[in-house]
Formats: sequence, C-alpha cells, structure tokens
Amino acid sequence: MNIVDLIIKKRNGGELTTDEINYFIKGVTDKSLPDYQISAMLMAIFFRSLSPQETADLTLAMVHSGTTLDLSEINGIKVDKHSTGGVADTTTLILAPLVASLGLKVIKMSGRGLGHSGGTIDKLESIPGYNTDLSTQQAIKQVNNIGLAIIGQTSDLTPADKYLYALRDVTGTVDSIPLIASSIMSKKLAGGSDAIVLDVKVGNGAFMQDITQARQLAKAMVEIGNSLNKKTVALITAMDRPLGNNIGNSLEVEEAINVLKGKVKGRLKDVVLELGAHMLVLGKITNNLETARNMLNENIANGKGLDKFKELITAQGGNPHVCDDLSLLPQPTEKFTVTAKKSGIISQMDTAKIGRASVALGAGRTYKGEKIDLSAGIIMNKTVGDAVQQGDKIAELYASDIDKCNIAADILNESIEISNVEKKPLPTILEVIE
Amino acid sequence: MNIVDLIIKKRNGGELTTDEINYFIKGVTDKSLPDYQISAMLMAIFFRSLSPQETADLTLAMVHSGTTLDLSEINGIKVDKHSTGGVADTTTLILAPLVASLGLKVIKMSGRGLGHSGGTIDKLESIPGYNTDLSTQQAIKQVNNIGLAIIGQTSDLTPADKYLYALRDVTGTVDSIPLIASSIMSKKLAGGSDAIVLDVKVGNGAFMQDITQARQLAKAMVEIGNSLNKKTVALITAMDRPLGNNIGNSLEVEEAINVLKGKVKGRLKDVVLELGAHMLVLGKITNNLETARNMLNENIANGKGLDKFKELITAQGGNPHVCDDLSLLPQPTEKFTVTAKKSGIISQMDTAKIGRASVALGAGRTYKGEKIDLSAGIIMNKTVGDAVQQGDKIAELYASDIDKCNIAADILNESIEISNVEKKPLPTILEVIE
Repeated sequence: MNIVDLIIKKRNGGELTTDEINYFIKGVTDKSLPDYQISAMLMAIFFRSLSPQETADLTLAMVHSGTTLDLSEINGIKVDKHSTGGVADTTTLILAPLVASLGLKVIKMSGRGLGHSGGTIDKLESIPGYNTDLSTQQAIKQVNNIGLAIIGQTSDLTPADKYLYALRDVTGTVDSIPLIASSIMSKKLAGGSDAIVLDVKVGNGAFMQDITQARQLAKAMVEIGNSLNKKTVALITAMDRPLGNNIGNSLEVEEAINVLKGKVKGRLKDVVLELGAHMLVLGKITNNLETARNMLNENIANGKGLDKFKELITAQGGNPHVCDDLSLLPQPTEKFTVTAKKSGIISQMDTAKIGRASVALGAGRTYKGEKIDLSAGIIMNKTVGDAVQQGDKIAELYASDIDKCNIAADILNESIEISNVEKKPLPTILEVIE
Repeated sequence: MNIVDLIIKKRNGGELTTDEINYFIKGVTDKSLPDYQISAMLMAIFFRSLSPQETADLTLAMVHSGTTLDLSEINGIKVDKHSTGGVADTTTLILAPLVASLGLKVIKMSGRGLGHSGGTIDKLESIPGYNTDLSTQQAIKQVNNIGLAIIGQTSDLTPADKYLYALRDVTGTVDSIPLIASSIMSKKLAGGSDAIVLDVKVGNGAFMQDITQARQLAKAMVEIGNSLNKKTVALITAMDRPLGNNIGNSLEVEEAINVLKGKVKGRLKDVVLELGAHMLVLGKITNNLETARNMLNENIANGKGLDKFKELITAQGGNPHVCDDLSLLPQPTEKFTVTAKKSGIISQMDTAKIGRASVALGAGRTYKGEKIDLSAGIIMNKTVGDAVQQGDKIAELYASDIDKCNIAADILNESIEISNVEKKPLPTILEVIE
C-alpha cells in the first residue's frame, strides 16, 4: 500500500477500504507517515468527505491507536455523555450526580476549558481539595462504591486522534463533519461505555453555527455509535445565548448546586433533564422518557441528587460543605456591574464573545496550560428576549483585577444587541437524533 | 498574515491577493512554513484552482524566489521553447540549430530524462566531448559568438518551484493545471527569454491525456506569459504514439542529424517546422508563418541547419564529426528484433509504455541520478495505422545486455495493439493557442 495512491484515491472521490484506513491511521500513530502527507489526506477528506463506513473505520482505527478502558468490573450499563461545548454549560456537574442517584453507573472523563468554552475539570477543581487525577482503577473502584466518578482524561487514549487534531488545527481542516464526528466518537468509544448521549450545540456560541451542520454532525456520530454497536442518541440544543446564568468555574459550581437544590430552573435545567432522561432510558433504569424526567425532578426535590454530588466530592477528596456554604468556593476580589446602554429588547447575544469576556476576566484559557482564576466569571442577569431600561443591570463581572473587569465589560457590551425588534430565540431542545 | 487563514480562504474558494501569494512563496523559500501547511494549501489549490491573476502572481513569486538570468548582453529577441515531454521527441536538437541558423539567438536550458520521457541534456552527452555544464556567462558569450548554446539547468533558478514540485510529487497534488502551468512558466521566465513557444503534448505518452486538459494547460501558460509581458504561443501536439522513430539518447541524436540532413521526414520534422515557424515570428525574423516554414525547409536543404549543429557541438567541446560518421556515437552491444505477433493494423500504441520499454533497455531513469546507457534504445519501424503481417519487424531494440532486450520486448509487445479495425491516429499538430 502506498500513501500517495491513497491520497489520490480519496482526492478523486474514491472510498477507502477498511485496510486502507487502518494503514493510514497506523502510519499516523507510529509516525511513519510524514505530516505533509497526513495533511494532504485531511484536506482531501475535507473536500470529498467520508462515507459512513469510512467514518466508522476511521473511528475504530483511532480507538485502537491507544489503550481502551475496560469497564467490565462495573456492573450495569455504562452510559457516557458528551457535549460539543458552549458557554455557561455546566450540565455534567448536575447531570452526573443526578442520574447516579437514580442507579446509573457513571464514569465520566472530562477536559479543561479552552477558548470561550469552559471545562468540567476546571470547574471541579474550584471545589477545595477535589482531586480530578484518579487512575482508571481508582475511578472504577469509586464507581463500584458510590456509582459515580468524574476524572480528567487519560493521556494514552486515542493518540492518533490527538495527533490528527493538532495537525487539523494548523492546516485549515478542522471543520469537516466526518473528522469531527470520528474524533469525538473515538474518545467516547475508547472510554469503554456501552451507550452514549451526545449534546450537539448549535448557535453563535457553538462550534456548529447552523442547524444543518449540527444535524449532519449529530447524524454522523449516531451512525458511528450504532454501527459499532454502542447505542447512541444525540440532542441538538441551542447555544445562541449562554445556557445557564453563571459563566466561570466556581460560579458554575454554584449554579450547579443551586439547580440540584431546586432553586434554579430554566434552560440549563431543561437540558439536564432531557439529557438525563435519555441516559436513564439507554441505561435501562426505565424505558420511558417521561417517567425518566419525573424521576430526575423527584431526585432534585428530595435532595438525593445533591447528596450524590456531596458523596462524589467527598470520595474525590473535596470539601462537601461547599454545597451548604457557597462562600467556601474561591471568591473574587473585584466586582463590576454592567448596565444597559439603552432601553429596548435584548434581541441578540454573541455567545462566543460573552465566553471571551469571561476569558478576559481570567476564567478561561487562550492557550493550553494557561493558569486561570477559578473565582472569576460572569453572572448574566438578562438574556435574549428580555426587555431592559437604560441603566438596568445586565450582568455582574467578577475578577481579581478591576482592569480586567473594564476590558471584559467592553467585550460584553459589544456582544449584546439591544433593539426595538423582538426576536425569537431558539427553542432550547431543537431535535433528537437516534 | 497567518497561513492557516490563507489555507482556509483558498479552501473556501476565495481568491488570494498578490501579497498573500508572496507571503506563501516567501514562506516556502525561506522554509519558515512547515511542509504540512504547504501541502494543505496545495491540496486546497487542487480543489479550488487558481484564478489567472493568482496563477500569474504565483509564477512571478516563484521566479523571484531565486536568481534570474539577465540576457541583456545578447542582442535581439530571445525566444525560448519548452515541451511538456514525450517519447521520441528530439525536437530541441533539430529546432535550436535550425532557428539559430536563421539568425535567432537561442540560449536553451534543458533537463535530464526521468520516467518514460527523455531529456535533451542526456542526448547531447551521447556526443563525445560535449559539455553541457557551462556557466551562464559562458553560454551568453557563446550565443554572442555563434547564436546558440544548449546547457543544463542552473540550480539556483526558482527554488520555490523545486520545493513545491517535490512536495506535490508525494502529496497527490501534481495534476493541477495552475500548479503545472506556474511551475513550467516560472522556470522559463527566470531563464530570461523575451518570448516563449510551448509544445503541450497530448495523448497516452504525455502528462495530459486528453485534449480538454491540454487546452486548459496551454491557455493557462499563455495567459501567464502574456500577463507578464512575455509573448507566449502554445502548440498542442499529439503524443498518442512516439513522435520520431528513434527512442534513446544516441539514437535520437542520430535521428536529429538525419532530419537536419533532410533524410528523415514525418511527424518529428512537422513539429520542428511548426515550433520553429512560431519561434521565428516571435523573434521577428519574419512576420509570416508560411515564410518562416519555407526558411526552415531551405536551411535543411542547404545544410545550414546541420552546420549550425556542428558549430554548437564544436563550441561546447564535442566532436562534430559524429554528424558525418554516426558510428562515432556510443554503440550498443546487443540488438534484438521485435516482430508482429499477428497480422492486422496497428490500431493503438501505449506510448508511455513504449517509453518504459526504453527505460528497461537502460536508456532512461526510474529515479533521479540513475546512471543510463547512452547507446540503448529502440528504433520503431511501424506506427499507428500501419498494416503488418505476422512476423514483420515492428522495432529494433538496442542494449548492452540481452536480458534487458527480452524484458523490453515483452513490454513493447504489450504496448502495441494489432486489430482488424483501422483507427485514425491524432493529427500531429492539433491546435495553436496564443
């Protein structure tokens, strides 16, 4: 087999065989293929796309490029969840304890924030003492004890995907549906779960800006999962404005606790309920979505979801008292109120830009490994569709430095459009693909 | 400027500005751009093509990536000629002395053979003593003395093109019309000529297999030349069978001498006359193509073309007596006759395969730098359209080793189709693009 022939075959619209895809990914993994041939192939794939069979083959080849987790020591159906990322999206912190409190076994590997999107691992680290750095064996043991573990990603999963992603990032080949789908699904499949619920975000705060693309991505991922015998369901949910009210690490933990306490309702909770319902059905805790939603609501009302979150925190070395005393979370030194520049209706928000305002406050990263301020962030007091009078409070900014607040306030003001025209925001749950 | 933005711009069908193309080629030349970004850009160009303006910009940027020849010391209009390469195509050896004998100043830089195509420099080196390795200054001086020099390519011309070509070769991005056109034209323009005649070959022995592609390439090159104020004319000529009868280095010198002596007529001579007529008109030796053809024929008949060839050989240290005594050329030790396997009409030849038969005899290279046998090759006795009886001689093979003859005979037999159906070969001169 010759890589130039394979590049030309794909370039000319041919379909690569399983062997050919395996040859390609083997060459990526063992570094026998030079980067310039890999990037030429990636650009050819960008233009010619991949068939469902090719996409499944690529995913599986990437799964087998590294170690895979064996979760057979955990009894029951393991259901994983993945979000394509957004702003004020702290669903995992609410969802994982809530479904675990209903008997689903959850071992969740999460990442750190980058750019305008936050990351679950950063958020958890704002809880004093919480250790995200568990080994797989420790995590499995914990799941067998309390039904739940949320840990950082193991570095030896899907090395081929990591390598390809880094190369795509610098060669203009990121936004290819089959490449995105296989990248996400390879990580989920290597994680060893039996079923997967996907949250594909769509809107100006998400990677997918329009519903057609989001649907294509959702379908591609569901096809991969199902063709590899991992039952997969994708929800398409709105990211045309921040999902919750709080943006930033300790602020999002605070909001998660308040949702688990039943104090906060709204879009964030709606997404949690819908994702959770599908997880419970895939995990065969119940076979009915409506029943599942009721169970989830019940375990918010009776406090069992919050109790499970406390158990999780305790098991991973953190201080569970944060749930009762939010002042134990990292506190910012500076506070700054952003007010409406004029009267009217908030007709639009540039959600990614709001995420960048949060990064400017120190809550997020512009590059991998950057130190962040766990106490920094934004509480949004208004959202799309709300009427405001000039001078009304729109948001509160938190940081360790008032200069950062000033910069972030400017970014936030630019990201919010106030006009006389009432525009309909997207419904929160747009579609279910399964 | 950021290369990822430029890759994405081209990938999305945008037109790169002159500054952006210059930035790209500067990065190729000074090696500040990694190969994986260059190859991603090349694949994006393969799919999105380049506008005439982008192609001209790319060409000029590659011209300026290295040194350029200054031919101002040579009086008169300097007309260069380039062929896209074929089999039994020894036009340069006939054409250059013939037009020089009519007063046109010719400084021709030629290359070596690779794959099924031969190279003028190899052919000339089969003349004992001929030195192709002249400096530019020596060549200019020689042109001022005798009107003609044929030398090897200067290595410091168009380094960006050399780099891109090497990368295209291993990334499946060779066959892009604007990339081929700019590669050829950058070398010609760096060579310092005032006008250019191009011979674009079409057919199964050529890089361009069909007339549509050949026409696109010809038009792209003519557009580049004219947009950069170098008057350019392209002929599209047939390469659906070997152009001359002789294939191989000393054998092609022999045929060139015989054409210059008026002993050999046919398609090779036809192409020489047509290319030569355009060169004479571009060089303002005459303003009429028919007059030009007559002048060329006259200088074959009166021996002035051959005399100029002898002058050239003498000036570059070779033995001009080869023209009178062909046995002074390198002689093969083995000879092998290929005969018709059946009776019928030669309906088709796989010309590239015939070229590869010649390579198998030792006359050509499979990789750069490979040593070749200057005496080896093929004399074709039959061509497409000829009727043959079983056992008729089709070709004579020459080599230093009878095993090579056996291998080459098999390849040659496979490359010739004898059937009962008379097929019309392509006319030799198909189109003129100017």
